Amino acid sequence: MRKGGKSHEEDEQEENMAAWLVGINTLKIQPLKLPPLGPHHVRIRMKAVGICGSDVHLFKTLKLVDFEIKEPTVIGHECAGTIEEVGSEVKNLVPGDRVALEPGIGCWRCDLCKEGRYNLCPEWKLLSVPPVHGALARQIVHPADLCFKLPDNVSLEEGAMCEPLSVAVHACRRADISPETNVLIVGAGPIGLVTMLAARAFGAPRIVIIDVDEHRLSVAKDLGADGVVKVSSNMQDIPEEVETICKAMGAAVHVSFDCVGFSKTMSTALGATRAGGKVCLIGLGHNEMTIPLTPAAARSGKIDVKSLITHRFGFSQKEVEEAFETSARGGSAIKVMFKL
Amino acid sequence: MRKGGKSHEEDEQEENMAAWLVGINTLKIQPLKLPPLGPHHVRIRMKAVGICGSDVHLFKTLKLVDFEIKEPTVIGHECAGTIEEVGSEVKNLVPGDRVALEPGIGCWRCDLCKEGRYNLCPEWKLLSVPPVHGALARQIVHPADLCFKLPDNVSLEEGAMCEPLSVAVHACRRADISPETNVLIVGAGPIGLVTMLAARAFGAPRIVIIDVDEHRLSVAKDLGADGVVKVSSNMQDIPEEVETICKAMGAAVHVSFDCVGFSKTMSTALGATRAGGKVCLIGLGHNEMTIPLTPAAARSGKIDVKSLITHRFGFSQKEVEEAFETSARGGSAIKVMFKL
Amino acid sequence: MRKGGKSHEEDEQEENMAAWLVGINTLKIQPLKLPPLGPHHVRIRMKAVGICGSDVHLFKTLKLVDFEIKEPTVIGHECAGTIEEVGSEVKNLVPGDRVALEPGIGCWRCDLCKEGRYNLCPEWKLLSVPPVHGALARQIVHPADLCFKLPDNVSLEEGAMCEPLSVAVHACRRADISPETNVLIVGAGPIGLVTMLAARAFGAPRIVIIDVDEHRLSVAKDLGADGVVKVSSNMQDIPEEVETICKAMGAAVHVSFDCVGFSKTMSTALGATRAGGKVCLIGLGHNEMTIPLTPAAARSGKIDVKSLITHRFGFSQKEVEEAFETSARGGSAIKVMFKL
Amino acid sequence: MRKGGKSHEEDEQEENMAAWLVGINTLKIQPLKLPPLGPHHVRIRMKAVGICGSDVHLFKTLKLVDFEIKEPTVIGHECAGTIEEVGSEVKNLVPGDRVALEPGIGCWRCDLCKEGRYNLCPEWKLLSVPPVHGALARQIVHPADLCFKLPDNVSLEEGAMCEPLSVAVHACRRADISPETNVLIVGAGPIGLVTMLAARAFGAPRIVIIDVDEHRLSVAKDLGADGVVKVSSNMQDIPEEVETICKAMGAAVHVSFDCVGFSKTMSTALGATRAGGKVCLIGLGHNEMTIPLTPAAARSGKIDVKSLITHRFGFSQKEVEEAFETSARGGSAIKVMFKL
Repeated sequence: MRKGGKSHEEDEQEENMAAWLVGINTLKIQPLKLPPLGPHHVRIRMKAVGICGSDVHLFKTLKLVDFEIKEPTVIGHECAGTIEEVGSEVKNLVPGDRVALEPGIGCWRCDLCKEGRYNLCPEWKLLSVPPVHGALARQIVHPADLCFKLPDNVSLEEGAMCEPLSVAVHACRRADISPETNVLIVGAGPIGLVTMLAARAFGAPRIVIIDVDEHRLSVAKDLGADGVVKVSSNMQDIPEEVETICKAMGAAVHVSFDCVGFSKTMSTALGATRAGGKVCLIGLGHNEMTIPLTPAAARSGKIDVKSLITHRFGFSQKEVEEAFETSARGGSAIKVMFKL
Repeated sequence: MRKGGKSHEEDEQEENMAAWLVGINTLKIQPLKLPPLGPHHVRIRMKAVGICGSDVHLFKTLKLVDFEIKEPTVIGHECAGTIEEVGSEVKNLVPGDRVALEPGIGCWRCDLCKEGRYNLCPEWKLLSVPPVHGALARQIVHPADLCFKLPDNVSLEEGAMCEPLSVAVHACRRADISPETNVLIVGAGPIGLVTMLAARAFGAPRIVIIDVDEHRLSVAKDLGADGVVKVSSNMQDIPEEVETICKAMGAAVHVSFDCVGFSKTMSTALGATRAGGKVCLIGLGHNEMTIPLTPAAARSGKIDVKSLITHRFGFSQKEVEEAFETSARGGSAIKVMFKL
Repeated sequence: MRKGGKSHEEDEQEENMAAWLVGINTLKIQPLKLPPLGPHHVRIRMKAVGICGSDVHLFKTLKLVDFEIKEPTVIGHECAGTIEEVGSEVKNLVPGDRVALEPGIGCWRCDLCKEGRYNLCPEWKLLSVPPVHGALARQIVHPADLCFKLPDNVSLEEGAMCEPLSVAVHACRRADISPETNVLIVGAGPIGLVTMLAARAFGAPRIVIIDVDEHRLSVAKDLGADGVVKVSSNMQDIPEEVETICKAMGAAVHVSFDCVGFSKTMSTALGATRAGGKVCLIGLGHNEMTIPLTPAAARSGKIDVKSLITHRFGFSQKEVEEAFETSARGGSAIKVMFKL
Repeated sequence: MRKGGKSHEEDEQEENMAAWLVGINTLKIQPLKLPPLGPHHVRIRMKAVGICGSDVHLFKTLKLVDFEIKEPTVIGHECAGTIEEVGSEVKNLVPGDRVALEPGIGCWRCDLCKEGRYNLCPEWKLLSVPPVHGALARQIVHPADLCFKLPDNVSLEEGAMCEPLSVAVHACRRADISPETNVLIVGAGPIGLVTMLAARAFGAPRIVIIDVDEHRLSVAKDLGADGVVKVSSNMQDIPEEVETICKAMGAAVHVSFDCVGFSKTMSTALGATRAGGKVCLIGLGHNEMTIPLTPAAARSGKIDVKSLITHRFGFSQKEVEEAFETSARGGSAIKVMFKL
């Protein structure tokens, strides 16, 4: 598949370009040396990579939870692409398959992995956390069993949304959302909105979403919220706001998802939820990357996640910088996506 | 609300007409003496009453499970109507409210009632099981807390469908249906179809339904089944049919609902479901009437149950007989409903 | 059963004496007028009444959660006695039966009652919360279905321990304690100790308990703790104490019960529990009285709760005062019990 | 560790002896060639190997479920031993450690493995199912993460009981046994008895066990059953026997374990269990070997499994044959154990 006048070396070099995190607020596109392809691995040509809050946080601070980045590392973990090559033992994938990637890799030997909770594995390895490089690259090598084949009706961009959607699906499963559960969502940012879509997919009959930002609430309304309530950032407004929320719900709040994680948002959620209900904190800090990808997410054609993608960028030095700045600014940017 | 030239007595008598089960295959409309209105009771003018398999079974045999009907009893337990009068302690309902009725009444003193499983209460009282009369009457008296106010967007006919829908909702809750669960439904009769609608409302991404009857399968397809498979009633066809079912699903079957309850249907369900999946038997015999009504059911506007109503009848002696015959014949009759 | 030279009136008056809460730090024994015996009620002669933290709190402040006591109210809700008289519809109890009392009464008409969570009923009525009098009385009238007959091998004092034990049993059920769960208990007061006994009954193989008080830890050790750790009340000691706790456990902490509810105790619990484990807060404030009595508690002979009773008092004005002072002092007083 | 006058070859040969299944009712001790030691593997010197029903079934038929044994295979999967050598990446074990072995090995790449249900893995490999040799050998090589270090208070024989105990622990977990659950056990064979011990460890307050054999019932009584009932194998006796069982329980049966799997045993269990209770079928055929080993089992010192070991044999051709015959005969033989 060589193109025009390029030499083999030029071509290979171009194919291996990746966006390295090299310093605070600095990203650089440089060649990437791919690791060898193991028998259970596949080589994937990346097609869509999303930016999430933790990527922006890394970009701005070079830190994530209790981890500090000290050497150039490829960023990005919300991604999808097409299979280029498969290892000798890989049976379920062939070159050309379109796949979403699960970014976390368990050890499969500890108790937590064996209980099916490999996102809690103490040796958990994540794309973009050294020594594992991330996904904002032309190609990467990844375990085949962590690549989920996309149905024909799911685009690669939707595939790259599987990872954030998995967080929301996991939260809905933990909170046992069903057609019998009225849901309050605190925060209409990317996590809040994707949680709303997931709660709807689990059958939640009434969903009210609250935020301080009118624009985000109007997006939520367009995406199908049954009610939206604009709130302040003032603790003293809680009692009155809780009353407004309950009126907007028109019924008991069974489950609240706090997708922000401030004292006020948590207090509001606790105040609005009925006795015996559940308040779930998701999206606090950056733990949203640590949830296993679920089949439900990989079938995301059923959940309209692509409507959350507000900005798209190509893969040049300038565009990569601009994409991260757009995502960091927030405002009308909900989900920023690279098309490679 | 007196009409034309009728005397008060005539009027009262007409208002209290009910369809009594008086012998095998015999129903008769006769006046009904209403019980006194207790402080926590309401009097309801019935507007819609559905016929279910257990009603037909009673009509044909005067027997239900280990119970035999020995004196005239009003039949019917799938019903909705409007409140006419409320007891002195009733706070949440007022005359004119449109309500769906939960037909079973617990003792609230036994362990099972206290665990929230009052459908298993040994003193459980059901509409249409003596000494409690049923709902196919112009008016009935019922505990207020078992009357669920219908939202404006839910019709009274849909209200009468809450009871059968509750069975399906209960089954989906027990089987933990979610957007991560592919569902096989065995049987496309009323119970199978309403279970399909409920499973979809719980988010099931793939639903395949099987039956011996092509017409029912085409109804299922119109109602949104992802796949339908015509099966035989021959045990020897199971292996081949299981293969066809799995192909129609295009993925693992996580949960199967057997809505028929024959050896063959159960064996097919067991054969098609993946290791570690669940097979749930519902609708066997007539226990479908014994499930508490759920809020999800009362909000049934979200689930298009009215598309299951294929026949409607008025409340004359002739029509009542005809309605039961229609329901007993099966065929194109899915749900038969009285409009009072 | 008239005694010696007493008149009928004197006798009746004596029989109806109760300990009224009349002002801050003031209790008075006065006659009590019993309510009429309804068809589903029983009259019980009280034999053992325990004092719990919420009783002491009421005694000292006349307040409980958002409720203020404004008129004389009989105190006490941990109690057991013998049936004197049964209502006309009561079938499962006869005079002479020894029973433990469940102190909370649901409405049985709201959603929460019907879900089996009647402790969350908005109309929940509790012994000792006006207008319902408590149990520190010679006799009381109570619903029969809230009186649990004690097996022969369970004493009346153990019966009075059912209510606090129910809190612990409920906590263990919610946290899913089993022979696969190592448990940390924070706080070796009455709640912590009874939780330890309950966790053992649920099969917990390793239980470590921590406290600031050496005496309480030695009691815990005698009651079967696998390890005890003395901690400080200083936040800065947490990392070191967590290490000591983990060493004492010799394995992962799967579940921690915080039976104290301070910032430090919660932080310690969170620090010591493994990733994916559970931290349960119980006993914060006084909500421990609001849990349904469980059959497990009523069979408390299997759980050696009587070893927690450190002080016993009779029922004179002086002894009642002394009992509350003893309980309020804490120290070596774990559970203070009245013998009536 | 060379002994006396033996040559190196003789010694190695003796060390590698294993009991091969070579034909129906025929076992032969022959040398075993150990597989190479991978980086995550350990070499274990076997010390105790139990015989279970599936071993006897293999011995008598050379078949197991849908699998047929066509070439010599080492038998045995209930086992414990001491570590001789560890692979280069093994961190948690050192030579000399005493371990119980989990006999089943998942692929860790399929959905079921990732959900923590690796016993349902389609590529599941089991000790003693070709091409994987079993444990009745002087030494075997096994993945280190499937070797559970035994606490000092747990003997190697108890270690070999971990595997059957795991089945019972798994069943109790699935049935949610707790101090609130009265348990009926149908069948007082090895599976029934170990289930009884596990149910007790989960806190079950009342356990009644039934069997056709008086001797087994007296063993059950000695092991702590609260009640035993001798039953017939006649279907017509069910109603009367159910009555006797309920009387022996003296309370509602919440959960029944059918450890036999006949029509009669299942019908008895269904008849005796209260409405809304659970009936669990375990031990049917030979699927009892397919359950992951649990930490609870590895701590089996808390559960007195060694009292189930009724016969012990050494490792000579004659004793191996005799052991299998003893186990096949049943009668007073509950658990037969090899001491190597």
